[in-house]
Amino acid sequence: MLLSGGLDSSTLLKFVGETLGVDERLALTLHYGQKHRREIACARRQAEMAGATEHQVVDVSWFAKLAAGSALTDDSVSVPDLAELTAGQRSQPPTYVPNRNMVLLSIAAAFAESRGCDAVYYGAHAQDRYGYWDCTPEFVERLNAVLALNRRRPVTVCAPFAGKSKSDIVRLGSDLGVDFGVTWSCYRGGVRPCGACPTCVERWDAFAAAGVVDPLATAG
Amino acid sequence: MLLSGGLDSSTLLKFVGETLGVDERLALTLHYGQKHRREIACARRQAEMAGATEHQVVDVSWFAKLAAGSALTDDSVSVPDLAELTAGQRSQPPTYVPNRNMVLLSIAAAFAESRGCDAVYYGAHAQDRYGYWDCTPEFVERLNAVLALNRRRPVTVCAPFAGKSKSDIVRLGSDLGVDFGVTWSCYRGGVRPCGACPTCVERWDAFAAAGVVDPLATAG
Repeated sequence: MLLSGGLDSSTLLKFVGETLGVDERLALTLHYGQKHRREIACARRQAEMAGATEHQVVDVSWFAKLAAGSALTDDSVSVPDLAELTAGQRSQPPTYVPNRNMVLLSIAAAFAESRGCDAVYYGAHAQDRYGYWDCTPEFVERLNAVLALNRRRPVTVCAPFAGKSKSDIVRLGSDLGVDFGVTWSCYRGGVRPCGACPTCVERWDAFAAAGVVDPLATAG
Repeated sequence: MLLSGGLDSSTLLKFVGETLGVDERLALTLHYGQKHRREIACARRQAEMAGATEHQVVDVSWFAKLAAGSALTDDSVSVPDLAELTAGQRSQPPTYVPNRNMVLLSIAAAFAESRGCDAVYYGAHAQDRYGYWDCTPEFVERLNAVLALNRRRPVTVCAPFAGKSKSDIVRLGSDLGVDFGVTWSCYRGGVRPCGACPTCVERWDAFAAAGVVDPLATAG
C-alpha cells in the first residue's frame, strides 16, 4: 500500500490490517520532491506503530524536476490558500502534481506483483475528487482495466475510502487508535501547519465535523 | 518519447521527427537496473544524432530491487536462451519486468504533461505481443482511457509501430539512416551480443528478413 504519512493513508494502514484482516502489509512511501517531506518521517513511525510487515521508502525526488510546475514540488510556484482558488482552478488546482498518482500506483503495482501480492491499497477519498482526476473512482476503475491485462498475476488497486469523506476517515482512524499527532498534511512544508492551504483547511474541517481533537492543531 | 537505445526506439525517434514531422522531441531514458545498461550510452548518442530537442536520463535503478525477480534486472535470475523457453513461459517470460512499461509510460506522461506535450511515443511492436501484455494495443488503449480523465491536458500514448514486425522496423530505420551500430539489444549485458537470448535471436532474424546487415553482428 501507498503510505504518505498523511491522515488518510495512516488510517488506511490500520484499517487494512485490523478491519480487513490483511496480515501481510507492505508499505511504500515515495519521496517525490514534495515540500512537505515532513510527512515521510510520519510514514516511518506509522508503519512501525501499525506493525507493517515491511516499509520501503524510495527517493524519486528527480520527479519534481521532470514534472515541474506544481505548487507541491516547485519552489517557484507557491501553495495557494484554499480561499484564493478561483472556480476555474478548482478542477485541477496548482497543488495537482502531473500524473503523480499513476506514477506512484504503477510503482506500487510493480512492487506488489513481484512480491506476490494481489492488491495495492491507496487512501483516495470522496473529497479529493473535486480537484484531482487521479483520485476518482473512474481513475481506479480504468487503472484496474489496464492491470487486468497481466497474464500471470494481475494486481488490483483498491481505494476503500473512495466513498468516504475526510471526516469519516478521522472518525474511523480515531476508533482504530491512529495517532494523528504523527501524521502530516500541510502542503507548505513549515514546522507548523499553516492553517490556510487547501489541505490544512480540509483537515481542520474534517476534525471539527468528526468531533475529534486534532493533536496538531493544539500542539502549539 | 521513451528512448531505450534499442533499435526500435532509435528508429522511432527518427520516424517521429522525419516522417511524422514532430519538431519538438523530448527523449526520456530510464535506467531501471537493466543488466544491458550498455543501451543507455546508445540512447545518448541516438538522441544527439537524431537532433532530439532534449534528452533526460533518469536513474531509477532502485526499481530493480523493488520489483525483483526478472531476468532483465535480477542477478540471481539468468536470461534464458530463446530456445529454452517453455510454452508456458512464452506468454510472460522470465525477461518480463513486473509492470515496467506502465511505470515508464506514467513517468513519460508526467514529463510530457508538465512540458505541454500532447503525446508520448514508445516503440512497442507486433512481435512483442506474444510475451508482454504491456506491449499490446489493448494496453495502450486502456492506458489512454486512464490518461483521458485528465481535466486540463490529457496526454496520449502513441505506439506507431504496434502493427509492424521487427523486420519492418529494421527496413524503416535503414531507410531513415539510423546507425544500428549504435543500438543495443542483447539482454545479457556482455560486451558482445550473446546471439542466443530472445532479443538477440529476434534482432538477428529481423535483419535477415529485412535483408539489412546488422553492424553489431559483423563487428567482431
